[in-house]
Amino acid sequence: MASIDVCYSPELLHLYDLKGKAVVAVDILRATSTMVTAFAHGAANIFPVMQLEECRAFAAQGCLTAAERNGIKAEGFDLGNSPFAYMDGQVTGRTIAITTTNGTRAIRMSEGAEEIVIGAFLNLEAVASHLAALQLDVLVVCAGWKGMFNLEDTLYAGALAERLQGQFSFENDATLAALCLYQSAKADLGNFLRQSSHVRRLENLEIHQDVEFCLQHNVYEALPVWRQDRLVDLNATAVEQ
Amino acid sequence: MASIDVCYSPELLHLYDLKGKAVVAVDILRATSTMVTAFAHGAANIFPVMQLEECRAFAAQGCLTAAERNGIKAEGFDLGNSPFAYMDGQVTGRTIAITTTNGTRAIRMSEGAEEIVIGAFLNLEAVASHLAALQLDVLVVCAGWKGMFNLEDTLYAGALAERLQGQFSFENDATLAALCLYQSAKADLGNFLRQSSHVRRLENLEIHQDVEFCLQHNVYEALPVWRQDRLVDLNATAVEQ
Repeated sequence: MASIDVCYSPELLHLYDLKGKAVVAVDILRATSTMVTAFAHGAANIFPVMQLEECRAFAAQGCLTAAERNGIKAEGFDLGNSPFAYMDGQVTGRTIAITTTNGTRAIRMSEGAEEIVIGAFLNLEAVASHLAALQLDVLVVCAGWKGMFNLEDTLYAGALAERLQGQFSFENDATLAALCLYQSAKADLGNFLRQSSHVRRLENLEIHQDVEFCLQHNVYEALPVWRQDRLVDLNATAVEQ
Repeated sequence: MASIDVCYSPELLHLYDLKGKAVVAVDILRATSTMVTAFAHGAANIFPVMQLEECRAFAAQGCLTAAERNGIKAEGFDLGNSPFAYMDGQVTGRTIAITTTNGTRAIRMSEGAEEIVIGAFLNLEAVASHLAALQLDVLVVCAGWKGMFNLEDTLYAGALAERLQGQFSFENDATLAALCLYQSAKADLGNFLRQSSHVRRLENLEIHQDVEFCLQHNVYEALPVWRQDRLVDLNATAVEQ
């Protein structure tokens, strides 16, 4: 039986062997939730990049550019990191280059894995089904906040572990803790998270509506995966064929 | 109001500013539990050292030497890492040099802090009272297992947060998670930990009795703190004066 493990921070990723594994990269507030939303609204490709300048350069190739630093949209880019900005039809058929404080780093640091999937509560079931079909050992890579543990990414890891219970083994401490936290919090995730100064700091940036949206389960079928140098939506491809 | 934060692994310690803080170094299974036990049984000083050779060299100065690697007593040392080995009177009045896989590293990496206290369930109340008197910002530094998150050190952090609730503030995600885990687990910590392959691996080393012992709350008054180059028992000193 394949296993699930959880890495709480990109700063701990060097302790894990990614070879042959399926990584689920997660940054619930908001990078991966926003990427899932973008694909669900028809984005063709997403380039997750580390640096602002690198991201800006994609504009010359006709891409939309999106950038966030410390929770705020960076100046001079088409889009920020709010999922609501991706819902008005402007991303349909477009390629987007995106850089965020934590999320894009978690994705790019996972490049040694066999498969990289973009996880969010919004596409929990799509990711879970894909992992169950792959039957590779899974590592959930939490983006965290500037290298530190955060609750929302951990709660997602717990939700995924609960969904895959019985099909995957998990006896490692990080997954057990994530599952226990999710089971304590799931009746009202928003309320649970509101204890956190980190989440309140994000909510102070007037993204209260974003937080509520990003905690919804199974809103979208989108299944963004890493292919060569970019993210594509595996479920969109399946529909088109 | 001073605050409590939790660092889940020495690998994340560079993200925290230790200056002016009280660090509680914790390695429940078993380094810090054993150190507390040693002081409670009359040890005079403990030198926590990183390397086996450095530890061995202390023998020439008349010290007892203790060493553990991967859960097993290292060859050629007087003592291992089981608290029961420190209860028969042989440590009374003695200085001990000790090196372990995870615990001594967490202690030595915390040297930039204003105060370093050795925490275990065994001396939970002694540590909590000391912290409440100091009123410095607290950082619980979990030794983890080879850099990875572990449950038992996190549960201790949660127990300490619960004890200090109201006297200290904590709104950071790591402390909130630790508290939630402790409150889910505290009715039967041993049973909760038995889900963990990490703890089962330790128990396979025939330390089942050690695990049970180390999860007991408030068995000892010992309060080991770092002074200059070694650990001393602050409560023992107080009694002697």
